[in-house]
Amino acid sequence: MKRAYALLGGPHSVWPADLKEQLKKALQKQDLIFASDRGCLYLQELGIKADLAVGDFDSLKSNELKIVEKNSADIRYSHPVKDLTDSEQLFRVAFEDYQVDQLKVFGATGGRLDHFLVNLFTFVHEPLKRFCQQVEFIDQQNIIDFYLPGRHVLKTNRGYSYVGLGNLTGIKNFQITGARYELKDYSSEVPTLFSSNEFIKDQPIQIAFEEGIAIAIFTKDKNRFANLN
Amino acid sequence: MKRAYALLGGPHSVWPADLKEQLKKALQKQDLIFASDRGCLYLQELGIKADLAVGDFDSLKSNELKIVEKNSADIRYSHPVKDLTDSEQLFRVAFEDYQVDQLKVFGATGGRLDHFLVNLFTFVHEPLKRFCQQVEFIDQQNIIDFYLPGRHVLKTNRGYSYVGLGNLTGIKNFQITGARYELKDYSSEVPTLFSSNEFIKDQPIQIAFEEGIAIAIFTKDKNRFANLN
Repeated sequence: MKRAYALLGGPHSVWPADLKEQLKKALQKQDLIFASDRGCLYLQELGIKADLAVGDFDSLKSNELKIVEKNSADIRYSHPVKDLTDSEQLFRVAFEDYQVDQLKVFGATGGRLDHFLVNLFTFVHEPLKRFCQQVEFIDQQNIIDFYLPGRHVLKTNRGYSYVGLGNLTGIKNFQITGARYELKDYSSEVPTLFSSNEFIKDQPIQIAFEEGIAIAIFTKDKNRFANLN
Repeated sequence: MKRAYALLGGPHSVWPADLKEQLKKALQKQDLIFASDRGCLYLQELGIKADLAVGDFDSLKSNELKIVEKNSADIRYSHPVKDLTDSEQLFRVAFEDYQVDQLKVFGATGGRLDHFLVNLFTFVHEPLKRFCQQVEFIDQQNIIDFYLPGRHVLKTNRGYSYVGLGNLTGIKNFQITGARYELKDYSSEVPTLFSSNEFIKDQPIQIAFEEGIAIAIFTKDKNRFANLN
């Protein structure tokens, strides 16, 4: 089982609080550490060397680029006028060149929503679609998993209160069983998200569908109270 | 022209910094102010009365619910076990009952990604699809606009550095002209996002497509530097 972690350029304000510890543990287990774009600089600031750095780096100053180059075992320079974003290129290198079995992605969410949606929608397109079940996007409040057609068992809520289930593409005969809110033979030609579903005690949730790409978003509320003044 | 503003339950950390001022000005012009879920409490904290409050309010304490009831001219209670989320119900009441021409939505992004995707995908489904060009999601770094098939002119970058363009559904013959990165007759059966496009000086960007729903995300970077220690 070849495991890898990727840090993209999204804002650190929505990273899991223990990301540094997660990455340090990953290093001890000799899991791979990848980064793209500003994520490469963030890694260096966290004191962690990258096995792979991907980016056009055009937003970095020359001294920042030198730091990235010194901190990374393998660097892939992407072209500024390009078909692939830095994160898409990272995903392709991870699955096609490094042939990782599992990729946990941080920094894919928050901040710029065009970046988030590129990351999300990349896995409904070829050639990355076939790898979608091996990738996971993780931030402070959410874990996003992807599913290919078939039957899937979601065993626990993984410490999150809710699970949003839906389809990123058209879908055929989507079923949700064992959850607080069940769904029977739902078909749609466009994306849909059913938010705030819940596990019933320790019972697993099962989903099944015939065509398309489904996602599960394990999620939780954060600050209940705000001081707006 | 009937204008309305809606505050949903998303985290205030990603609101535009001047949201309070925007809402105060809206009040002076007698634009309508709507809120759903925790957004109702946020409004009250901002010292602004709601013309409409929508929610099941099951996450509120009884004293919080009393505050919301006192602060709102029109309250619609949604059912906790429901087909529509609070925000979907707000959108329907806004367009169908209040017949607003333009709805600016805050608190639709950030935090829980199941909530964000429900808000985003609602406008590719009936019955709200036909109103998609009248709604706009706004946060600190992004404005999201929706488009029905046809030809559309995006006149300026609205003060944002980049514009992400894409399709939330399958799309046919999608074209982007006048932008830094052009696109010719792109068709896809699944969602796609082309991030980080740019306006060339004062030249407008034109998009055109035959089927589906397109989006534009006007967007900008935030903090370039981080102190992660």
